[in-house]
Amino acid sequence: MKRTKIKELFLNKQNFDQKKVEIYGWVRNNRAQAQFGFLNVNDGSYFDSLQVVYNDKINNFSDISKFRVGVSVYIVGVVKLTPELKQPLELHATKVVLLGDCPEGYPIQPKRHTREFLREVAHLRPRTNLFSAIFRIRSVAAYAIHTYFQERGYVYVHTPLITCADCEGSDQMFKITTLNYNKLPYDKEGKVDFTKDLFGKQAFITGSGQLHGETFAMAFADIYTFGPTFRTENSNTKTHANEFWMIEPEMAFCDLNGLMDIEEEMLKYVVQFVMDRCLKEIDFCDQFVEKGLKNKLNKLLNSNFVRITHHDVIDILKKAKKNWEFEPDYNEDIAKEHEKYITEYFNGPVFITDWPKTIKAYYMKLNDDNKTVAAVDLVVPEAGELMGGSQREENLEKLLARMEEFHINKQEINWYLDTRRYGGCVHSGFGMGFERLIMYLTGVENIRDVIPYPRTPKNCEF
Amino acid sequence: MKRTKIKELFLNKQNFDQKKVEIYGWVRNNRAQAQFGFLNVNDGSYFDSLQVVYNDKINNFSDISKFRVGVSVYIVGVVKLTPELKQPLELHATKVVLLGDCPEGYPIQPKRHTREFLREVAHLRPRTNLFSAIFRIRSVAAYAIHTYFQERGYVYVHTPLITCADCEGSDQMFKITTLNYNKLPYDKEGKVDFTKDLFGKQAFITGSGQLHGETFAMAFADIYTFGPTFRTENSNTKTHANEFWMIEPEMAFCDLNGLMDIEEEMLKYVVQFVMDRCLKEIDFCDQFVEKGLKNKLNKLLNSNFVRITHHDVIDILKKAKKNWEFEPDYNEDIAKEHEKYITEYFNGPVFITDWPKTIKAYYMKLNDDNKTVAAVDLVVPEAGELMGGSQREENLEKLLARMEEFHINKQEINWYLDTRRYGGCVHSGFGMGFERLIMYLTGVENIRDVIPYPRTPKNCEF
Repeated sequence: MKRTKIKELFLNKQNFDQKKVEIYGWVRNNRAQAQFGFLNVNDGSYFDSLQVVYNDKINNFSDISKFRVGVSVYIVGVVKLTPELKQPLELHATKVVLLGDCPEGYPIQPKRHTREFLREVAHLRPRTNLFSAIFRIRSVAAYAIHTYFQERGYVYVHTPLITCADCEGSDQMFKITTLNYNKLPYDKEGKVDFTKDLFGKQAFITGSGQLHGETFAMAFADIYTFGPTFRTENSNTKTHANEFWMIEPEMAFCDLNGLMDIEEEMLKYVVQFVMDRCLKEIDFCDQFVEKGLKNKLNKLLNSNFVRITHHDVIDILKKAKKNWEFEPDYNEDIAKEHEKYITEYFNGPVFITDWPKTIKAYYMKLNDDNKTVAAVDLVVPEAGELMGGSQREENLEKLLARMEEFHINKQEINWYLDTRRYGGCVHSGFGMGFERLIMYLTGVENIRDVIPYPRTPKNCEF
Repeated sequence: MKRTKIKELFLNKQNFDQKKVEIYGWVRNNRAQAQFGFLNVNDGSYFDSLQVVYNDKINNFSDISKFRVGVSVYIVGVVKLTPELKQPLELHATKVVLLGDCPEGYPIQPKRHTREFLREVAHLRPRTNLFSAIFRIRSVAAYAIHTYFQERGYVYVHTPLITCADCEGSDQMFKITTLNYNKLPYDKEGKVDFTKDLFGKQAFITGSGQLHGETFAMAFADIYTFGPTFRTENSNTKTHANEFWMIEPEMAFCDLNGLMDIEEEMLKYVVQFVMDRCLKEIDFCDQFVEKGLKNKLNKLLNSNFVRITHHDVIDILKKAKKNWEFEPDYNEDIAKEHEKYITEYFNGPVFITDWPKTIKAYYMKLNDDNKTVAAVDLVVPEAGELMGGSQREENLEKLLARMEEFHINKQEINWYLDTRRYGGCVHSGFGMGFERLIMYLTGVENIRDVIPYPRTPKNCEF
């Protein structure tokens, strides 16, 4: 096998002109005429398919003309550049071999399928143009994130997914066990006896690696996590899934302003990286998913992100004198409609800082006003919140007081508190939901369409 | 804050000579004399610590001389190159500020700690030389893997961790639930009623992404996964953990020989990548963890991996006439002692191919002899098995027959079988346990020391 990938043909076409090559791939379309025909062959290496011309000089011509969509093939042929045609090159076949057949009822046909239908055949949908684009962008974006952090010396930390620390509240975490549900052991009080379980206690799969990440930031200064996370939310919206991937960087000796610098630089880096490497895919999404996608992304690259406090955002919202569904309030979160207004007001991405302490997490740094915390949400036009982060409370006494207010069990995360006991320092971190980024990069509106096999309530197929 | 990272000082020392810089970091050691002293400061950016010289011209000299190990500091000083000394440069401090104190009882002191003790303070151990080396190597190795595959056009696929397909046998998978264990709903037959659970049925967290990966290989041809996996094994050995990371590449139009080419090229690429970027860390491991580590790695880079069938390996083992603990057998797996013998026999890495079908998985391609499958294990000197893979059975009838033999539920993975129904083709894949690779790269012998927060039976701390 001396396979040439179709991507090579497209990217180095001059080198292949009039050359004989061997390709392997899947037939996306077959237009057979009396004495010749065209196969569109895709081998997964490139977004575009290769046009293969075959004619009746090939001895199995009549078989080839009956090849159905979806079959896998081996083809020998000569490359011909076709600058006069829509496609830049064609392959003139001298040999076409059927490798794997495909029956009549094959669900992926060369026509428009609804995304709802394609979710039901999630194992086949990467064979369509749309999902070929989405999942390649997903892959390249993941690599962009790794490259951004690795080139800057960050240490990638695999924080544990299994945890026994019930620090987020067990309602929000999946419980895991090796016990047999139908023969559960019970203790004297009639409760399930988890001392008999594999870990000797109740275990969960986690929704965040932040606390573990902070312990590593106290050694390496700059670290990031990138892994799957889980939430049990029984929520059937376009933006919620029970399993998703998250990036959580954590930086020692970095304050809120330093944090925003990193968030802005990273986001622009990832957008540019994907636009440079997924030209065809972004073009396709611009044309068929979100009109104006490329403009949106280019505008982001050329904008300076605004930095404004939550208080000042509420001021602007109140002055707007609009009929809000949710009235803007200095002590409350801001709603989708507010995010939309404020990004339009500034005509670009906005960092909203210094949030009321009552609506943010206990580990965020309390500001001197004693009312707000040094938290920051990044909201961007069209997509809303993309990242959330904060400077962390490095003062042990203040942190303990906040944990008290939030009824956090101190004993269970005593190890975490050591980060404040032993050489603590100013540090900051943020979290970015990876799927939200992919939705932003592709224009796709439903999280179910950016995850290979999405898990949502009552839906764990495949 | 105009922080200079210590790594920059070491790598570009000529540019910094006689320059004033500001650094942030943690004190690893403080040797105070009457009129001057030395702080070893590490900021996590570099393996080596920076030697900081301070003297009694600094107004808080007496405070500085009492700084304990572990405190975080801010230091202004002038860089002086010291080619005559052990370290290439020093920082002559003009200002030293204590940022975060550290009490007497700080567990990480500048002396040798046992690895067993350090496991008990897993949240602090990255602050030691050993774990600083291990976890940076882990991070760089992860990036090496991504870089290898991305540069070659592979698509990184996030296969799902939550699954309802019980294809590995539920004894080997953790069960997950959102139900309250102490108020479980029961059906009419008295069994737990999972229709009331979040997904409407019993769900698990998975031990492999291979089957899902194969579906994407049928679209993109070349894909890889890299994510956490879980096993419930109640096994307390040096090489087993219940949570670990795995890489599972899958390639369409690739046979067993092509697979071995990729495995060999990838492994050499990763070893070279890490050796190029973690000089200090590899040196440290060579000196303090595994004497001869660098020789071992260099030898791997310069070797051609042997390819030999399982049958021929057994021949060699039988001829060896050694007193085996386990007698070599043509129908059986090979034991650790056999792996050791065979890598010594060939003085290098060995691909062992074509294994008895009875001891390998159902999805591996049945050879024409009807007795063996096109599987391959890579065994390397000192470490044993590093990767396992196979050509996959692409013939639907043969695959179904094998599933029958192994009592695999066909209905549950009917979607997987579609890869053979719709344009199936020759394809191959392998799995590599990431921790095993890190143990190989560092010489560390216990898996608990290469995972940030290891999970093993009865051990789910932090």
